[in-house]
Amino acid sequence: MARSAKIVSTGAYIPPIVVTPEEYEKMYGVKVDPNFVERTNVRVKRIAPPGETPATMAAKAAQMAIENAGLDIKDIDYIILGTDTFEAIAPPTSPKVQYLLGGHKYEIPTLDIGASCAGSVYLLDVAQSFIRANEKYNNILVIGVYAMTRYLRNKFMWEWLFSDAAVAAVVSASEEPGYLATKLRADGSFWDYWGIYFGPTKNVGELIKENPDIIYLDLRKAYPPVNEMYWPKLIEAVMQEGRFTKDDITQILFTQVRLQTIQTVMKELGLPLEKTHWVMDKYGYTGNTSALLALHDALANGKVEKGKVVVFVQSGVGYQQGAIAFRWI
Amino acid sequence: MARSAKIVSTGAYIPPIVVTPEEYEKMYGVKVDPNFVERTNVRVKRIAPPGETPATMAAKAAQMAIENAGLDIKDIDYIILGTDTFEAIAPPTSPKVQYLLGGHKYEIPTLDIGASCAGSVYLLDVAQSFIRANEKYNNILVIGVYAMTRYLRNKFMWEWLFSDAAVAAVVSASEEPGYLATKLRADGSFWDYWGIYFGPTKNVGELIKENPDIIYLDLRKAYPPVNEMYWPKLIEAVMQEGRFTKDDITQILFTQVRLQTIQTVMKELGLPLEKTHWVMDKYGYTGNTSALLALHDALANGKVEKGKVVVFVQSGVGYQQGAIAFRWI
Repeated sequence: MARSAKIVSTGAYIPPIVVTPEEYEKMYGVKVDPNFVERTNVRVKRIAPPGETPATMAAKAAQMAIENAGLDIKDIDYIILGTDTFEAIAPPTSPKVQYLLGGHKYEIPTLDIGASCAGSVYLLDVAQSFIRANEKYNNILVIGVYAMTRYLRNKFMWEWLFSDAAVAAVVSASEEPGYLATKLRADGSFWDYWGIYFGPTKNVGELIKENPDIIYLDLRKAYPPVNEMYWPKLIEAVMQEGRFTKDDITQILFTQVRLQTIQTVMKELGLPLEKTHWVMDKYGYTGNTSALLALHDALANGKVEKGKVVVFVQSGVGYQQGAIAFRWI
Repeated sequence: MARSAKIVSTGAYIPPIVVTPEEYEKMYGVKVDPNFVERTNVRVKRIAPPGETPATMAAKAAQMAIENAGLDIKDIDYIILGTDTFEAIAPPTSPKVQYLLGGHKYEIPTLDIGASCAGSVYLLDVAQSFIRANEKYNNILVIGVYAMTRYLRNKFMWEWLFSDAAVAAVVSASEEPGYLATKLRADGSFWDYWGIYFGPTKNVGELIKENPDIIYLDLRKAYPPVNEMYWPKLIEAVMQEGRFTKDDITQILFTQVRLQTIQTVMKELGLPLEKTHWVMDKYGYTGNTSALLALHDALANGKVEKGKVVVFVQSGVGYQQGAIAFRWI
């Protein structure tokens, strides 16, 4: 029987600082339209305290996932971290997290991946591929971290959306089929729409002198509704490749950016809202971490049915999209 | 028979601007000790012209690799890009390269990976894992790009080493075993030794005001000789896992940072210097790209024997190390 992979545990770090729209307006003079709050369902913003960095947040979420799996750091065969708010330009963030977890004593390999806010899906797909291709990997720790509040100028209403968070999961080898299917797509013609456009396109000193605002999150052009357009197609594709039906699904977990989009997509699929779980109301928009964070919270709330299928669907600027399905075993 | 993966082609972008030690001294007032040139064998520095960015360099190398494989962009199932000098903090670099190659028309999935200067090894390992685990991927384009000259202050002699470059390879599914073995290791306790320590550890505006030099490559502490210490062990490990001997090796290709280290390691392994190939003398130190760039040049010089084994060995700050072996079929 072919070797498969399953998700065995999750962990999360949620920052303790909570900001309401009223407090945000007082802090920065930016008024958040109540209709914007309604449409997105982002009702608070969570901000990491000054002492936390992407690596410390990641390590806290990872430690919880390792414990929830009943494992120790020495049982982990690979650490894969996904973020677009890395600890430093170089080195990658993952070796620092390995050190914070004590994993350097076991020389645990690490890798950073970049798929912006589509992170969770790509992390899980890399983990299932590594496990199914390489028999030496039995337990892979995947971590998503998002520290976007530190790249905000807090001048525009859309900046209200962004919160900090970290999430982690242990993905392990299994004999029973856990992993079912993945469908990914990308369209780089949207690369310059939304991002933090700081990089070595020229000497970095000159770059900052010319445009000090280049190191902040910049919304240059509005995206067309690519989530409404493609999420249903991605879900259909994993259902077909994974040979399961809508009735097999216990939860579909989306990028937590706009509740209205999730409602529209669920309706189009003919699935009840109970089959999805959202956390943007209490955790804000947390980018790459968000679909795994929704799983973490759905598990805590007993909303994931054993033997049924969990589907993750995410999108990130650039842009990249993906869906991945696991049977919850 | 199990599905395997093989390297079918390479491509490279080498910047046209060539700087000698004498010219470097004239440009920046930094004298490069001839003994340093001798030990490292870095005899010139290559600098990308102002019009080139990491994405344009990557696209040029990728186009050559696709053509050398006799393929078209539409035949590529996945684009994986490794760098620590990305086009922007967000989005990832790979979607932009996908667009420059025309790959957006086919919605080709893309992923960035971060393994600093160990890049080539990790890129090849991700590609072999994706191909062997997922039957839908037949041709994966891997790309390494390095634009480190733009992060230099050109105040210290060690900065002489760094050049810009891009390299690419097509890795394809094969029935005959191409891929043989991988050995990776990391030790994050060295994370703060050498890097570009700019990231959202606090608000980025404050960070730059406090320390404008934080966006430059910073050598804080000298590494112990981890390459001399661990490269032989990594090579022994892939020989054992891949079940081949020293006699099966046609080329071992290393991070191109210091010829003296390569000579020491080859001697310790009991292998003649003809079994390795170096390019730092004409291309400088090109970070994550360097072992694949050495392959590209070794192929052009007819130094890779069919049926024999090619081993890649790289190290990157943070730190991460790895070796990967493919039979050249």
